[in-house]
Amino acid sequence: MQLARVIGSVVSTQKSPSLLGKKLMVIEPVNADGSSPAGIYQQEVAVDSVGAGEGEIVLVARGASARWVFAEPNQAIDLAIVGIIDSFVP
Amino acid sequence: MQLARVIGSVVSTQKSPSLLGKKLMVIEPVNADGSSPAGIYQQEVAVDSVGAGEGEIVLVARGASARWVFAEPNQAIDLAIVGIIDSFVP
Amino acid sequence: MQLARVIGSVVSTQKSPSLLGKKLMVIEPVNADGSSPAGIYQQEVAVDSVGAGEGEIVLVARGASARWVFAEPNQAIDLAIVGIIDSFVP
Amino acid sequence: MQLARVIGSVVSTQKSPSLLGKKLMVIEPVNADGSSPAGIYQQEVAVDSVGAGEGEIVLVARGASARWVFAEPNQAIDLAIVGIIDSFVP
Amino acid sequence: MQLARVIGSVVSTQKSPSLLGKKLMVIEPVNADGSSPAGIYQQEVAVDSVGAGEGEIVLVARGASARWVFAEPNQAIDLAIVGIIDSFVP
Repeated sequence: MQLARVIGSVVSTQKSPSLLGKKLMVIEPVNADGSSPAGIYQQEVAVDSVGAGEGEIVLVARGASARWVFAEPNQAIDLAIVGIIDSFVP
Repeated sequence: MQLARVIGSVVSTQKSPSLLGKKLMVIEPVNADGSSPAGIYQQEVAVDSVGAGEGEIVLVARGASARWVFAEPNQAIDLAIVGIIDSFVP
Repeated sequence: MQLARVIGSVVSTQKSPSLLGKKLMVIEPVNADGSSPAGIYQQEVAVDSVGAGEGEIVLVARGASARWVFAEPNQAIDLAIVGIIDSFVP
Repeated sequence: MQLARVIGSVVSTQKSPSLLGKKLMVIEPVNADGSSPAGIYQQEVAVDSVGAGEGEIVLVARGASARWVFAEPNQAIDLAIVGIIDSFVP
Repeated sequence: MQLARVIGSVVSTQKSPSLLGKKLMVIEPVNADGSSPAGIYQQEVAVDSVGAGEGEIVLVARGASARWVFAEPNQAIDLAIVGIIDSFVP
């Protein structure tokens, strides 16, 4: 799973029916200590499954894993928040 | 899902039958506020499922998610526009 | 789908039976106008399903999409040319 | 499979039920000799299936491979440690 | 499929049962003419299915394609060598 920070959300009226009523969170990549990874910076949108809030560091799953944490219809979901990180133990 | 801006479309005569009658939109990566991500810049082609127009910021799904927002035949589709972004709430 | 230019082909004698008789085209990433993307440059090998020739700009599908545009056996195929681009409409 | 070094673990209370009781290891990319790859540096979280400890170099599998080394429920797992590297033979 | 050069192998005692008896080859990315791609350099481990030897340029398949060139159990395999390149025809 990827490590990411929640930095907000997006509003979308015209969308796949499988996204209706879902929380569309904007995330950015982070390391486990909250620092920014070197190299590429790309925000993405993940559907929240665990009640994550802005500023929290979260676990993000991709592909089939993202769909399967939601009941159907879930077709359009390829990125989901599946955990909230409490602490990093180096 | 990825965040992208629609910058045009492509015409293709010789293609997989599963792409017949589909709108082949050219997209580029963006952040939620419309700015360009640092690092890699790579345009891709996504099949539109929500009536997205040029200049709009959209949600893009990859892999099985992209196929499953379309009825069969959908084999060749591995990237689809699944939502239009109205606004970003930081 | 990714945008790529066909720059040649490879010959492989020792290979998965699912690649027998297939055209193994070498591709490089391009933008819709034929320019090179900034950042990473990585050639890959895609199996041709539409009669693409050297120098043409093509649509490339990955993963299950790549396998499913071919009849079985198709196991080893994870990248396929699924369309030839005639023109880009900005 | 990717090559990675285990650099710690994360604690997560609020998470997908499929992650309950799993060891969530933080990994960073390495080459086979333990050196750091040039370019992108991105930590990720992989679920341990082989008893890997901090500092060890491991094999990491992604996607369906990551889920299938665990019994169900395994939905949220898209990255798993599937081997510990003893040595590299150049 | 990706283009890669075999640069060695790894030994792993503690691993997924699906990797028992498999040849775990270390690969690095190359272009079709054997040159190194610009940008990211990341070694990975691919399971050999075609008798590839050190120094050879090979075709590498990812995901389900990698699993399906092997009989079960093959769960942990997400990267496989599926062809040896004899020559590049530009």
